[in-house]
Amino acid sequence: MKRYRKSDFPVERVREHLETGPIVLVSSFCNGETNIMTMGWHMMMEFSPALLCSIISNQNHSFALIRKSRQCVINVPTADMIDTVVKIGNTTGAEIDKFAEFGLTPEPAAIVAAPLIGECYASFECRLADASKIEKYNLFIWEVVKAHVSPTPKCPKTLHYKGQGEFRIAGETVSRRRMFRPEIL
Amino acid sequence: MKRYRKSDFPVERVREHLETGPIVLVSSFCNGETNIMTMGWHMMMEFSPALLCSIISNQNHSFALIRKSRQCVINVPTADMIDTVVKIGNTTGAEIDKFAEFGLTPEPAAIVAAPLIGECYASFECRLADASKIEKYNLFIWEVVKAHVSPTPKCPKTLHYKGQGEFRIAGETVSRRRMFRPEIL
Repeated sequence: MKRYRKSDFPVERVREHLETGPIVLVSSFCNGETNIMTMGWHMMMEFSPALLCSIISNQNHSFALIRKSRQCVINVPTADMIDTVVKIGNTTGAEIDKFAEFGLTPEPAAIVAAPLIGECYASFECRLADASKIEKYNLFIWEVVKAHVSPTPKCPKTLHYKGQGEFRIAGETVSRRRMFRPEIL
Repeated sequence: MKRYRKSDFPVERVREHLETGPIVLVSSFCNGETNIMTMGWHMMMEFSPALLCSIISNQNHSFALIRKSRQCVINVPTADMIDTVVKIGNTTGAEIDKFAEFGLTPEPAAIVAAPLIGECYASFECRLADASKIEKYNLFIWEVVKAHVSPTPKCPKTLHYKGQGEFRIAGETVSRRRMFRPEIL
């Protein structure tokens, strides 16, 4: 798998990489242990501060690591990583070291202790902003405190999970910019 | 625009139409007034009960209608509706009747008072399940109480907004079903 050289990216523009709904890989670190999980349920909440939320099932090994450390990195994989994405979602960090097992490269983050995944073109360092709905819904509210995005590819072929073991791959990009009021672009 | 003949669809399978992250059209009804808004920030929360959440800015004319009625219908448009989707997002229900203005067909829902949009291939009737984060984040937590989906197309070309006036169109479908543990399909 290709490893990306990522650059700093404005956190208030994170929506450009998450709003389309890609499946993401969440890396975590707590008390010397690292893990990765596959996550499909996430959404943007605010541009600035850059808030997003996600569901992390308490059945996942990552749940305790993320809840205790109050941090994670949300990494966006591309379609060439589909088999790795599926394997990560179908194994547990209680039994294996997913970075080693799947040949992924942990890279140091700037702010949080969880590592970036070198093979993902975008990585967003997150700190827990609101824990009040974790108990009831497994709902984590995050602030993106640092964003790293590779300048290429311009239109990454992201994976979009639809259940039943099937993914859609992001296709053609179409602009309707001329039809937008400038303030809502 | 084509009008779809939709069938009943199991609410616990709503994720198959929303988890990929399509832009949606939210129809509402309150005190005799109907409206439609374009919405990009939504995610699944639970299969059963079928919970999802979304951000509805209090700057939207729909905000008061939806908050007061505690109901909405989430409709999924396809790529052929892109110009209508953009126009709906760039106008306000305070000034126009969006159904009439954009040639959309309101169809009666089964449970809620808000109408389905006939030209969308899928429509999900929602009732507000939790209002506790509306004030702080404009975060609405919904239960899907009834789902309507057209049996065709099998792989709808949904629109996925990426900001800056640009959309990705859902492309190829790829299955990795054989690699999944049955219990997480």
